[in-house]
Amino acid sequence: MIDEKDLREEFVSSEEIFDGKILHVIKDTVKLPNGNITYREVIRHVGAVCIIPITDDNEVIVERQYRYPPDEVVTEIPAGKLDSPDEDRLSAAQRELHEETGITADKWTEIGEFYGAIAYSDERITMYMAQGLHFGEQKLDDDEFLTIEKVPLKTLTDDVMAGRITDAKTQTAILKAARILGI
Amino acid sequence: MIDEKDLREEFVSSEEIFDGKILHVIKDTVKLPNGNITYREVIRHVGAVCIIPITDDNEVIVERQYRYPPDEVVTEIPAGKLDSPDEDRLSAAQRELHEETGITADKWTEIGEFYGAIAYSDERITMYMAQGLHFGEQKLDDDEFLTIEKVPLKTLTDDVMAGRITDAKTQTAILKAARILGI
Repeated sequence: MIDEKDLREEFVSSEEIFDGKILHVIKDTVKLPNGNITYREVIRHVGAVCIIPITDDNEVIVERQYRYPPDEVVTEIPAGKLDSPDEDRLSAAQRELHEETGITADKWTEIGEFYGAIAYSDERITMYMAQGLHFGEQKLDDDEFLTIEKVPLKTLTDDVMAGRITDAKTQTAILKAARILGI
Repeated sequence: MIDEKDLREEFVSSEEIFDGKILHVIKDTVKLPNGNITYREVIRHVGAVCIIPITDDNEVIVERQYRYPPDEVVTEIPAGKLDSPDEDRLSAAQRELHEETGITADKWTEIGEFYGAIAYSDERITMYMAQGLHFGEQKLDDDEFLTIEKVPLKTLTDDVMAGRITDAKTQTAILKAARILGI
């Protein structure tokens, strides 16, 4: 039986590779549990939030948005980066939901968080379920393009199970909400 | 109603930022739907697979592994990168499961795929459920450190719902398997 402290790596030094608008890439030298030296290429990310907004009739407001890395228009729940690492995550979620969809909500429930690419990125995304929805006007940035759809949670759950939704946060939040609401 | 082709961005040019061991970082210039020029910082990744191995008693073999980006020992299902972009994904899943846990399996079911960080990485992870398990010897690399545990799928599902599992692929695969198996 290995003690879990014997799994840990020890920081030796850090080299900055790229400090871009979104990505901050570093290459760290670390000492492995067996004493060997290796390197860890890591994205340092400010963190993010995502929101699954659900109506009283168990319909979900989702977005259709072009994503450059896979070169596809995909279905996603609303989401966004924090403005700073210490920004309150619930406030960020409320802001992002309002900007992208025009929605405010009476009831907010945190439903967990996750690392989407734990091998190489420290981006931690906190998931919220928003209920008691009030609909208003979108406030998209000039260079932001997305459309909004209202889809039954049952349909989205079937889509996830059939492999028709490819975004990780969207899959996880839908499956969690379906389990919470017994759908 | 916006036509979905009006959401797409047009490639202009590409600049290589970093070509490391794991991360290949590029900065692309693109034209937005409104004609404005912007930049996309993107990780180009070879792709990966993950496997949820489930016994006849609905127990799951999971790993405890140190992950450098969050600086935590975390619970994860077995997973690994492809050896090349065109490697057969099922073969890669069979190899990774055997190397990390010593397990071979009679029944393999693809249960979907996802992008873990769709805003900035093209890493696509394909998920498999492995059943009819046969247990053998681990074949870890010299510099690979992880321990194996057997945990009921019901317990893991409760852990996911309570926010005690932070890895995205592990959350999604557990929730999918629980729904498929009626747990």
